[in-house]
Order: sequence, then structure tokens, then C-alpha cells
Amino acid sequence: MGVVVSLDEGKKESASIRALMDLTRADMGRVNELILSKAGSNVEMIPQIANHLVSSGGKRLRPMLTLASAQQFGYRGDGHVKLATSVEFMHTATLLHDDVVDESGMRRGKTTARMIWGNQASVLVGDFLLGQAFRMMVDVGSLDALDVLSTAACVIAEGEVMQLAAAKNLETTEDDYLAVIRAKTAALFSAAAEVGPIVADAGKPERAALRSYGTNLGLAFQLVDDALDYGGSSADLGKNVGDDFREGKVTLPVLLAYRRGTTNERAFWKRAIESGETTDAALDKAIGLMTRTGALADTIQRARHFGGIARDALAPLRETPQKAAMLDVIDFCVSRVN
Amino acid sequence: MGVVVSLDEGKKESASIRALMDLTRADMGRVNELILSKAGSNVEMIPQIANHLVSSGGKRLRPMLTLASAQQFGYRGDGHVKLATSVEFMHTATLLHDDVVDESGMRRGKTTARMIWGNQASVLVGDFLLGQAFRMMVDVGSLDALDVLSTAACVIAEGEVMQLAAAKNLETTEDDYLAVIRAKTAALFSAAAEVGPIVADAGKPERAALRSYGTNLGLAFQLVDDALDYGGSSADLGKNVGDDFREGKVTLPVLLAYRRGTTNERAFWKRAIESGETTDAALDKAIGLMTRTGALADTIQRARHFGGIARDALAPLRETPQKAAMLDVIDFCVSRVN
Repeated sequence: MGVVVSLDEGKKESASIRALMDLTRADMGRVNELILSKAGSNVEMIPQIANHLVSSGGKRLRPMLTLASAQQFGYRGDGHVKLATSVEFMHTATLLHDDVVDESGMRRGKTTARMIWGNQASVLVGDFLLGQAFRMMVDVGSLDALDVLSTAACVIAEGEVMQLAAAKNLETTEDDYLAVIRAKTAALFSAAAEVGPIVADAGKPERAALRSYGTNLGLAFQLVDDALDYGGSSADLGKNVGDDFREGKVTLPVLLAYRRGTTNERAFWKRAIESGETTDAALDKAIGLMTRTGALADTIQRARHFGGIARDALAPLRETPQKAAMLDVIDFCVSRVN
Repeated sequence: MGVVVSLDEGKKESASIRALMDLTRADMGRVNELILSKAGSNVEMIPQIANHLVSSGGKRLRPMLTLASAQQFGYRGDGHVKLATSVEFMHTATLLHDDVVDESGMRRGKTTARMIWGNQASVLVGDFLLGQAFRMMVDVGSLDALDVLSTAACVIAEGEVMQLAAAKNLETTEDDYLAVIRAKTAALFSAAAEVGPIVADAGKPERAALRSYGTNLGLAFQLVDDALDYGGSSADLGKNVGDDFREGKVTLPVLLAYRRGTTNERAFWKRAIESGETTDAALDKAIGLMTRTGALADTIQRARHFGGIARDALAPLRETPQKAAMLDVIDFCVSRVN
């Protein structure tokens, strides 16, 4: 297997996100309070589903980025807490709708909301959380932040539709695939990072730096995630190795292995992705092919490429603990795999 | 049958919405252009689905209300056109998600988007249109309008979840039902009407007047719609008599007929709504029971009650062609049934 996450590396990972967690701990406490209060409703099913998602955990990387990027510019107020919560709600709404679209049964090691409360409630509670996200942004009162986040909402949805249209298509080019993840994943990372300097009234170059950092971090994050789906252990990930494979998702490791494969291997990929022949034996074979063709290693290589751009994007900024922590996050994302 | 729409009344209806159409014709032309341009995307499926909905027609009552209520206060700009388009997009996004939630096959006499492009695309294109709606609001730059419309987005979603939770429950009280339609229908009418005075910089009393007008018009509109589902002709409605019945929807005519019914009749309603025994014969019987118990007539009576409140809400406003047209709309809504 070309991709493994050893226990030691597991420790290194948590170490490299530690600085960000420490710096944003107090603010994240306020974000968590706001999440609980804004997910409240007299309509019982809404807090139930919201709590299910909140307790599902996840690293809350996106809101932490908003908080740290506001702190970077010395922000003293509570707008960044509201914006960070908005970002997390947008993310949660997307997950709810995604699980419906992908017909997923598991998310981060827990049964998905749609399996418990149904597709209908998942769609509607997602709409509610998106609405609450916008209300909080309006409450902050920054039209620039509203512009960035509402544009991200559009781009994310556009990316999801793009992905749907390209579903199971092995002829998707790497460029097409990058366009999809740029929209569906990187756009929210980018917006999360950019609203920090916006709320802190920093200048245009600072906004551009954080925007670029977020975009490229998001790309690296998604590519590593795609690779981990064919390696790493289930407990570390909260998802099972092979989930993408069994859902017939066309991710970069698949695209590269398919392009680089022999005629026979391409026939294998077609049976797997297009016809759904995704037994455990087929998954083993897929991982073997990805390793032999270098598809996994090169997916990680691509991730490192974007990680490097993210790093350079922050270079002009003043040295602060926040900047150091944000640079660590790049390593955290990329070092999840070796 | 207690509720019929004769050909003559059909003519009377179009007459009473005529003034509003005439006054907003030029602005609606710009709204329609904006709809087409903002529903555009390089992702093919998005304009396809959007065009399907646009060509499905509908009266576009909500954006016309926004335009007329801005005109009422002498507004000269293009913000009202953007806000009207936002309102229509919010409505369209709700329809897309509703059809998924209700598993509907037909809408306004046309096959629903979800039957052609699937539930997945309907969810995602709804999200895209909602995002575009917010972008246009941000573009107008009024935080008050953003506040009103983002709050409406939350309330609508909350109302839909409420409806889902109360689905097929014949013990729903009239108050519960009113709370549902106040959220899922009246909130958008209310917001559509209120953003007119907001963009025109009118005062608080004017905002309150339009908000109240919109809320009560929306309630009347929904109640008449509920009654028409058990009367009226398919061609007039763009939906078939009995759609709500066959979907087991608990609307006010059903609730009243159930409450007022004999033990045997209640057993009939339980078989129909809870167990789905909704043959044509059962529909005929349902309409018969609604007529005998006065459930249909009283649903209309309730609608007239709210129509009266809407009328009084506008009373303090200056007499203008717009005000007269908005008053006509109340009659249009209520006079759809006799």
C-alpha cells in the first residue's frame, strides 16, 4: 500500500494543528455556544439534527481559520465569532445536502442524518442552517464579508452540480477535476480565510493573501482526502477506506490510475466505477494499481504543490503566532499521508 | 361541489391582477432578463433546470409585489428589480426542494424538475439559486433588506420542517396549521412586500404596513389554494384537483372536515390520509364531506378574514395606482373561489 498513516504520524498530525487550536480555543468556545443557540428552534427536529452533526465532531478547521485570520490583523470584536459560525453552518448545510445527493450512510464514523431522520428533513434543515448562516453574516453588517460568503455559497453549489454531471465519467480530465474541487471544497476554505482580514479591516493585499492561502490549502486538503480514501485507517479518518470507491466517485487517484493503466486495467476501472463492481477484492486490486502507476503518490505530490502555493501566499504577512499556526495547518493537511 | 371556478370568474380573476401587471410590466421585463442572466452558468444543468422552472410560468405574484411596493414610495433606481429577482429565486429554490421533499411528479401542470433531472440536481440547483438570490441582495447593499430576506429564508425552512413533522397528523390544530403556513408561505409574501419600502427608504410605519399586508395576503392565498385543491378545474390551476389529497397532505379543509365529522367519517379520513386510501371514489367522498361540514366554505371564510386584515394594513397609505392594484390582488386571491 502506498499510503499509510502510522500511529506516530497520527501524533505528529495532532501536534501540527495544536497551535491553531490553542490560539483559537477561547473564541471557539464562543463559536460552539453560538452554534448551539442558532441551531435552536421550537421545531424539535431542527436542534436534533443539528446536535447530531455537532456531536459528530470533525476538526472545525474552517471556523478556526476565520478566527486565526482575524486575529492575525489584531481584530478585537465579536464579528469573527459570528462569521466563523456562519462558515461552519454553511459547511454543515453542505454536508446535509451532500449526504442526500450521494445517498451516504456514514459520515465521520456516524450514521448520517438522512438515515435517521430521512432525506426530506436533511434537505430542509440544511436550508434552515444556510438561512441562519446568512442571518449571522447580516448581523455582523459587513457587505464585503456577505459578498465573499454568498459568492462561495453559489460556487459550492455550482461545484456540486458539476460533480454530479461528471459522475462516473472516467474521461474527466485532471483540469476538470480540479475545477470541481476548487468549487466544492476550496471555495469555502478561501472564504473562511478571507473574511478574517475583512472583519479586521485589513487591506486588499492582506485579503488577497488569505484568499489565496485558503484556496490552495483547500485544494491540498481535498486531494489528500481523496488519497486517504485508498489508504489510512478507518479510525483515524472517521470514514472507511474504499468509501469513494464503493460510491463510484471519480477522484484524482482513480483518474490518474485509469489514464496510466493498460487496456485491461482500464476495463477493470470501467467495471468498478461505471458498473459498480466494487468488492473487497476489487478494492485491493484498485489500491494495487494506484500504487503501481504512482497515482496515489502523485495525488499527494499535487497536494504538496498546492500546499507550497498556500505557504508562499502568507509570506508577506507579519510574523505572528497565528501566521505560524496557519503554516502548520498546511503541514497538518499534507502530512496526514507519507 | 362547494367550490367551483367558472369561466366567467376565471376572467374576473385575470382582471383583478391586471392593474398590478400593467404597473409592473416594464420592471418585470428587467426582472425576467435578470432571472435568465443570473440563472446562467457554465454548468449546463443549472440553466436547463432554471429555464424549465421559468417557462413553467406561474403568476410571479411575489416579485410584482416587491416592485409595486417600491413604486408606492416613489422609488427610482434598480434595487427593486434585483430584490424582486431575489424573491423569485428564493421562491424557485423552495419549489425545487419542496418537490423533492413531497416526491411530487407535477407542478403547475408540468413534470417537475426532479422527475427529469433527479432529486440530486434539484437539491443542488435550489442551493445555487438561493446563493444567487443572496448575491443579488448583497449587490443592492441594503442590510435591512438582507435582514428581512435572510430571516424569511430561515422561517420558510422552519415552516417546511414543521409541516414535515406534522405530516399525516389529523390531530393538528387549526393554530398549528396556521403557524405552518404563516412560515412556509406568508413569510415570503411578507418579505417581498416589505423590501419595497426598505429599498425606497420609506419609514417604519410604511414598512410595518407592507409587512402586515404581505403576511395576511400570503395566509389568504395559501388557504384559498388549499380549498382549490378540492375544487376548481385542473387547467385553471396548473395542478390537479385532489393532489393534496393523494399526497396525504393535512390542510385546513381536511382538518375542519375531520374535526366536524362523525366517528365513521373520522375513520374514513384516517384511512385516506394515514393509510393512503385515496381512490377517485374516496376523493369524491372527501369533497362531499367537506361540503356538508362546511369545511370548504369556512376555509374560504378564514381566507377572507386574513384578506380583510391585509386590506386594512394598507389603509393609512397614500392613494396611488399601486395601492389600488395591491388591494385588487387581495380580491384576486380570494375571488379565485366563490
